[in-house]
Amino acid sequence: MCISSRHTSKLTRQYYRYALNLKSLSYHTVYIKLPDVEALAKKIGAAPTMTEPDGVSLFYMIPIIQDDSTGTIISDSPTIVAYLDKTYPSSGPILIPTGMMTLQLAFSSAVVDAFTPLWPFYALGLMTKMNEVTAVYFLKGFKKLLIQVKENLGKMNKWFEGSDGNFVIGNEPYFIDMAICAFLWFTRGVVGEESEKWKDVVSWNAGRWRRYLESFKPYEKLL
Amino acid sequence: MCISSRHTSKLTRQYYRYALNLKSLSYHTVYIKLPDVEALAKKIGAAPTMTEPDGVSLFYMIPIIQDDSTGTIISDSPTIVAYLDKTYPSSGPILIPTGMMTLQLAFSSAVVDAFTPLWPFYALGLMTKMNEVTAVYFLKGFKKLLIQVKENLGKMNKWFEGSDGNFVIGNEPYFIDMAICAFLWFTRGVVGEESEKWKDVVSWNAGRWRRYLESFKPYEKLL
Repeated sequence: MCISSRHTSKLTRQYYRYALNLKSLSYHTVYIKLPDVEALAKKIGAAPTMTEPDGVSLFYMIPIIQDDSTGTIISDSPTIVAYLDKTYPSSGPILIPTGMMTLQLAFSSAVVDAFTPLWPFYALGLMTKMNEVTAVYFLKGFKKLLIQVKENLGKMNKWFEGSDGNFVIGNEPYFIDMAICAFLWFTRGVVGEESEKWKDVVSWNAGRWRRYLESFKPYEKLL
Repeated sequence: MCISSRHTSKLTRQYYRYALNLKSLSYHTVYIKLPDVEALAKKIGAAPTMTEPDGVSLFYMIPIIQDDSTGTIISDSPTIVAYLDKTYPSSGPILIPTGMMTLQLAFSSAVVDAFTPLWPFYALGLMTKMNEVTAVYFLKGFKKLLIQVKENLGKMNKWFEGSDGNFVIGNEPYFIDMAICAFLWFTRGVVGEESEKWKDVVSWNAGRWRRYLESFKPYEKLL
């Protein structure tokens, strides 16, 4: 298995790393630059993931999964996870249980929305060379934005009162839990694990988000 | 079974009517006025549903379910549905499958958000006597707000691409489907079933929302 990913798209890449590690599938990652995505996708026959706002031009997104053992190439997020479940049903857990795709997509969307206030900081991760003035400008607004994320995660935390375990569906990890973890993992990377900001984040909602990352630690690394 | 409900809270009442009808439970509705909710809740021993923003005062919401056969009184939305499932597991379908509470709460929240632009019109339903000037004022903004709802439902429609049936989880109705239907039902009541506006709504997303209401028609009425 091979993931093609631009070096800047850390968040999405981490997400698929969780998925592949959870399913105990071996893979390697090919890092490509943003302007090269379309050419590579066309070369290996990866489908475009969406149409541009003009309604005609096609848009190619990464990561793309290339499965050497079946020759399959997939480039759309939920489709990739559904493919892994279908092709490797007994390797690791099923990541999207039967009939649960719609609910998982809805929850994914809520996760993305919850972390939206921090997008400027995720964008920071894209800049390999950022001058200090820009950094100060971005970091000035951080406290306010972090309060918004805290509110959003607090709302999400209430939904967990319906769960019997630490995860969305009891104590077994699914597709949707990986989405939460990928955002937390990337946020930790941006603010720094030893920072006061991160210590604040992991104290929210009785430590729910700290526990999330701890539970997924075994699946965090490039295997 | 008895539902206490103020005469104005049509939307929420419809929601529980779907739930009770789907579960083939018999009930009658006691209509109470908004200022009388707290006194009634205290009298019958219904718990407050939330704390006021001051952090001290308690807030009592309706509907409240009073189950004569068990003596139980419940006043919080997901708790009511979970109670019905637990107490009457073999009467009608299970409305929240095991382990699905968190996902259903998240989806519920998305449904509420999707219809949020129309709140002024739901508020219209609260006014028994509204003068014409006010009505015109409200209706002027309708077209714009309806476009927002159309966009929101379009986003939600994409999540359904993951479902094998017409509902959120395949072709069986659950808690979450009733939430969608209650909003659609109430919207239809506000704009009028024969109006051009409603004909527009039911044409969206290849008729998905029209099919929703049709499927739930048998559970719509006071039984």
